[in-house]
Amino acid sequence: MPATPAAADAPLRVRVRLAVDCMGGDHGPSVTLPACRAFLQSHPNAELLLVGQPAALAPAAGWERCELVPAADVVAMDDTVETALRRKRDSSMRVAASLLRDTEAAPARADVALSAGNTGALMAVSRYVLKTLDGIDRPAIATVMPNALGRYTTVLDLGANVDCSAEHLLQFALMGSALVAAVEGVDNPSVGLLNIGEETIKGSEVIKQAGELLREAAAAGRLNFHGNVEGNDIFHGTTDIVVCDGFVGNVALKTSEGLAAMLASFIREEFTRGLYGKFAALVALPVLKRLKHRVDHRRYNGAALLGLRGLVFKSHGSADAFAFEQALARAHDAAARRLLDGVKSRIQPAAAPPPLATPA
Amino acid sequence: MPATPAAADAPLRVRVRLAVDCMGGDHGPSVTLPACRAFLQSHPNAELLLVGQPAALAPAAGWERCELVPAADVVAMDDTVETALRRKRDSSMRVAASLLRDTEAAPARADVALSAGNTGALMAVSRYVLKTLDGIDRPAIATVMPNALGRYTTVLDLGANVDCSAEHLLQFALMGSALVAAVEGVDNPSVGLLNIGEETIKGSEVIKQAGELLREAAAAGRLNFHGNVEGNDIFHGTTDIVVCDGFVGNVALKTSEGLAAMLASFIREEFTRGLYGKFAALVALPVLKRLKHRVDHRRYNGAALLGLRGLVFKSHGSADAFAFEQALARAHDAAARRLLDGVKSRIQPAAAPPPLATPA
Repeated sequence: MPATPAAADAPLRVRVRLAVDCMGGDHGPSVTLPACRAFLQSHPNAELLLVGQPAALAPAAGWERCELVPAADVVAMDDTVETALRRKRDSSMRVAASLLRDTEAAPARADVALSAGNTGALMAVSRYVLKTLDGIDRPAIATVMPNALGRYTTVLDLGANVDCSAEHLLQFALMGSALVAAVEGVDNPSVGLLNIGEETIKGSEVIKQAGELLREAAAAGRLNFHGNVEGNDIFHGTTDIVVCDGFVGNVALKTSEGLAAMLASFIREEFTRGLYGKFAALVALPVLKRLKHRVDHRRYNGAALLGLRGLVFKSHGSADAFAFEQALARAHDAAARRLLDGVKSRIQPAAAPPPLATPA
Repeated sequence: MPATPAAADAPLRVRVRLAVDCMGGDHGPSVTLPACRAFLQSHPNAELLLVGQPAALAPAAGWERCELVPAADVVAMDDTVETALRRKRDSSMRVAASLLRDTEAAPARADVALSAGNTGALMAVSRYVLKTLDGIDRPAIATVMPNALGRYTTVLDLGANVDCSAEHLLQFALMGSALVAAVEGVDNPSVGLLNIGEETIKGSEVIKQAGELLREAAAAGRLNFHGNVEGNDIFHGTTDIVVCDGFVGNVALKTSEGLAAMLASFIREEFTRGLYGKFAALVALPVLKRLKHRVDHRRYNGAALLGLRGLVFKSHGSADAFAFEQALARAHDAAARRLLDGVKSRIQPAAAPPPLATPA
């Protein structure tokens, strides 16, 4: 093994320690604790720091490879960013993020943090506690959507940044490339710039400038730029990554969720309409189950907050134990594959520090 | 009947004359002519001006309530706006739009025009030939998407305008209100401003300013403003109209199309997988057919180009005869219900001219 391997060649982190905000989300410990237990069974080298109110965490006392970390407050799903930042300084969310803080005096206690708490608060708290990486103006949120190829398309930003410059979009592309390389195991993931047409003359001024920056970055070997893509390409799987500002990304995600919900309710209605519909549903049940499994959004739960000096993942607030466990697994894999080093080396190819040695 | 009725109370236009670009779209006359024939049968008071190359229109010679209007050129689906405007001055698209031009010397020959030709070219040609209405900076494209209530949500703009000001979004809201009042028959249609959260503090600066303008317009009784909506509200049916800039609208539409296509292919795959899948499909066929009918996008074909001094409708380029006939019907209804007067009176309440007298 070379002394300073490139991030992409860095060995897997064998023992990953996750800080889990057990109080966040719509359901709190009733979902997070069972998920953590199942996750520990399938990940024999993982260690968990369970953060929350001691009484709520009592069921986990004595679990192997688990440490309970007390936090007095809970950030509610409808708390403002202001409340989360100023009034709830001992929240489980903030304590979990703090466990990633890495200084010479006090090295990080965890490799990655996960919360199902409210997105705006989690981003603000993480940013406040961890700060952004050198070379990053704004952290972004990246999630995956299933595509027709049976794989996933990673989309960012998903709502953290509404007015983006071309430079921000370039940063999103670089961070997204690091994410997909680490978590999906794709060597040189392709990047599409979300636009309203494939031609380079299409789109707003910012998008056209971003296209130029992305072409330059591709020419310099920093990323694999496919060109402009359109909304349908997200589900077509045209590129591994789709880059857009947070406003557009949020609308695309929510619109998709709305359409999927409508179609699911139409299918339910038609298969329960009248005696024949119910009979058909009975016969078609195995087929409908396979269909449901294919589009089950719980399977790809876990969005990444990218650009911070620490790895933070966000679970859907409404996640059940199965979905939260998937998010734990995604966060674990990102840390095991050294996503943070990958982001650093993509953003600042020259200045990237060598990855830490792996504890044997 | 009062001498100068308000637009909303104006009598239906009994005899509507439609100018049809018969050459546009992926299929040209092989689709447009059968659609026109079927439309004439179901609309005994409609008259058609069929525009195109004489040889291509030959099958329609002698049809009742039809006049053939020759045009030598055809705008191809991949022609640039430049080509459509400068090189093909005698295109079927341009001739069709010209039939709407209304001057004292030469009154309009048609009440509405329909083309399945390429969107960018149709907007540019229509704008060049007809000009925009007083009080409108930029024409917009409005389409409908089905919602969970079994009705339609009208969304605009759909790609004509990428960088919009708050004032433009207000104009879209007013024009969309006129459209829904006329075509869907909703008296006081509700307007949602597409945003990334319901709170008024959310979104970009332009969106926040647009929210203020919309609230002011609502207070003045010019429209029925619901507030901010999110992407999922389009399919939820929260408001009759969803207003956004053309970039966001285009992404929302294309993303929805991509997701719908992916889900349709998943359903097809699962119901043809193995012997049991095929058996289940056979049993479920009546249910699947009902489902397909419910989401059949051909049924709501026909986008409106709003803000011009003439009514132009746009059919999907890939429309078949059934879909093109639906677009003809929508265009007909908009003209019969005097959409143009409706738009004028919403944009300039005081300056709106009285609607034309209906030919008895």
